[in-house]
Amino acid sequence: MTRSGLFEMSDVGIEGRKIAFVGKAPLSFQADKIIDAHDCIIMPSLVNAHTHLSMELMRNYKDTASNLMAWLNEIFPIENKLVENDILWASRLGVCELIQSGCTLFNDMYFMQHRTAQAANEGGIRACIGMTLFGDEEDSKQRLAQKSKETATQISESEGRLHLDVAPHAIYTCTKGSYLYAHDWAKDHHCQLHTHLSETKGEVENCVKEHGKTPLNYLLEMGYFNDTKHVLAHCVHLTEDEMETLASLDASVVNNPTSNCKLASGIAPIGRMLGKHINVALGTDGSSSNNNQNMFEEMHVASLVSTALTGDITSLPPYQVLEMATINGAKALGFPEIGTLEAGKDADLIIIDTHKSHLTPLNDPFSALVYSTQASDVDTVFCQGKIVMEHRKITGIDLDETIRQTEICWQDIKSR
Amino acid sequence: MTRSGLFEMSDVGIEGRKIAFVGKAPLSFQADKIIDAHDCIIMPSLVNAHTHLSMELMRNYKDTASNLMAWLNEIFPIENKLVENDILWASRLGVCELIQSGCTLFNDMYFMQHRTAQAANEGGIRACIGMTLFGDEEDSKQRLAQKSKETATQISESEGRLHLDVAPHAIYTCTKGSYLYAHDWAKDHHCQLHTHLSETKGEVENCVKEHGKTPLNYLLEMGYFNDTKHVLAHCVHLTEDEMETLASLDASVVNNPTSNCKLASGIAPIGRMLGKHINVALGTDGSSSNNNQNMFEEMHVASLVSTALTGDITSLPPYQVLEMATINGAKALGFPEIGTLEAGKDADLIIIDTHKSHLTPLNDPFSALVYSTQASDVDTVFCQGKIVMEHRKITGIDLDETIRQTEICWQDIKSR
Repeated sequence: MTRSGLFEMSDVGIEGRKIAFVGKAPLSFQADKIIDAHDCIIMPSLVNAHTHLSMELMRNYKDTASNLMAWLNEIFPIENKLVENDILWASRLGVCELIQSGCTLFNDMYFMQHRTAQAANEGGIRACIGMTLFGDEEDSKQRLAQKSKETATQISESEGRLHLDVAPHAIYTCTKGSYLYAHDWAKDHHCQLHTHLSETKGEVENCVKEHGKTPLNYLLEMGYFNDTKHVLAHCVHLTEDEMETLASLDASVVNNPTSNCKLASGIAPIGRMLGKHINVALGTDGSSSNNNQNMFEEMHVASLVSTALTGDITSLPPYQVLEMATINGAKALGFPEIGTLEAGKDADLIIIDTHKSHLTPLNDPFSALVYSTQASDVDTVFCQGKIVMEHRKITGIDLDETIRQTEICWQDIKSR
Repeated sequence: MTRSGLFEMSDVGIEGRKIAFVGKAPLSFQADKIIDAHDCIIMPSLVNAHTHLSMELMRNYKDTASNLMAWLNEIFPIENKLVENDILWASRLGVCELIQSGCTLFNDMYFMQHRTAQAANEGGIRACIGMTLFGDEEDSKQRLAQKSKETATQISESEGRLHLDVAPHAIYTCTKGSYLYAHDWAKDHHCQLHTHLSETKGEVENCVKEHGKTPLNYLLEMGYFNDTKHVLAHCVHLTEDEMETLASLDASVVNNPTSNCKLASGIAPIGRMLGKHINVALGTDGSSSNNNQNMFEEMHVASLVSTALTGDITSLPPYQVLEMATINGAKALGFPEIGTLEAGKDADLIIIDTHKSHLTPLNDPFSALVYSTQASDVDTVFCQGKIVMEHRKITGIDLDETIRQTEICWQDIKSR
């Protein structure tokens, strides 16, 4: 499957890190290894454009609290106890889960990000490693100095798979000074910026009360968007005017429908955003508010809730949802070398086994991928031309040991 | 896991068709076969309370049509061409898909229902086999005479796993005479009744226009609910008054959130219905509007869209969703012998392998089952004390052959 459509009974050739051809193999092409993908779909691997990977630890933890604040009051004390070893094992687990559901690029925002970078490198996949900021300008200054230094080795060893990003958390946790310092640092170091925006009604109302304007306009007017590239997570509550503004910026929106529903934040108007040519990507958010990293599930939920919101069954066709989870994610995160299946692009692709009860008959493959396919149907995963999972077995990380160690970390964290 | 809560490190004993004990094995209990369920959850198998199983054939078929009517205009000509052999293979496929996602009881409404009954018997699972009615009283009379006769053998050979139901399709396809004939036949033969109700706004508006009352009141006033037990699929558009009425009837509602979202019908107010003590079960609807028979996915979507609708994260806790998919389904369909894990009940249960990246750490098992678990995590399935799937292998039906034959049927149908 390519962006422009569908090839049937085709071959896909990989040479080094690149896709050599899609369609018919040139006579000159000599393969070292041949994979029989009969009864399979080959497609670009998925992009998870907003997550907090190490929150794997808090999966299904106290999430039946009576309200959002009560739940956060359970989560924050846990986060205060985390150490690098916890982050490393949780990130390894997260990388395994991402690969097993067909994802080879994720956009992360969390603490001790160099351990998440390490896990991504071990798993052989791509990531935008966010240097997460809280507090005021002085906090941001210190954090960026420290975080950029501690992550440098992982970035340089990643062969281009890792990008370093600047991630001021949100307008209600970072001051204007913090945002502006983040902006300047990102501009000077040619980094993207990644923040949460307009996730809940309360956030918008408080911002209007405090600053006399909506979150987007608040950031816009302080100069946060000047000459920089942006990822804006959530954007559930935007006015039509704000969407028009957004369309004129170098900014992508990340839709997180499962998390937004589960936390009762609302349903983002992604059909309307796409109609205004905003680049909308898709993300799972952290596993404590999802509660997994399954991008196939996320595509399905995005499609369902968007259709329910608009009342129009044509408002978000499956092909557009697949674009959100592939090429739009690649664009959002600044990886032009991936996102479609075409010669010359990097070979980030997945092989999906369709010989399943729930994929018979297959009929429209785009519908099948969005409505019927399960993460467990992903058989083999390539990133940058290398196999990172073959017949469901992760190649770079020992999954059984990771499950064991993550459990040990989690029991230990709770007893600290 | 039992209805009343959770047992850790427990054994479950099965003797004949029954659960002999849950907890600690009595010293006297001698097992012929022992299954190691370390790192597993054992829970009641799931109940799919509304589907059209043979619509497996039209999975992902033309479902990007521009509107509902355009899509139905693609589906109806296909349905007119179906023969018994198509229904048999599609039903076998559906039974495999149900078992592989942990379901051992389904409520079906479709044509040539004796072939669906045959497939359920082959797979060794339970079903309510609906005798589907369209048209007027005379149509219903003829159909019931024929259908009850042609299904009799399968029912009697099912050892109680199959019930025969009367299923007038909907108020816009059946006359009042048809509904009343169905009612009387069901009453005389001690059968349940199963119909679609208030699925779309259009259905409600047309009914008010034509009959001067809402669909529920239309059926109520004609006497359809007198002295009979009912399953009402969808109920997306009910007033508060109608919900109060429903609570006083011997009627269960089946929520089909995926289908309702996908077809832009709306989101049913299930939190409010449960609050009024209406028995709300869960169903997938047919695979042409879902597009699979995955009750784990259905639980997840039910929870998400209900929370988004109410804006209240406590409105439908995971445990209540699990009840909808187990005990509420069993109650709705009239199978008091199943739905919970307790001694004396029939052994309809599933073993879920939690040694997975996406189920680590497990934390709250109820959250894990609703938010994180995949159908593919179901390892082994029992129905009436017998293993119908062991380590993902279906015991009663040859899945590979079924996939092959269903494909052949489907290619043939399209060329007829």
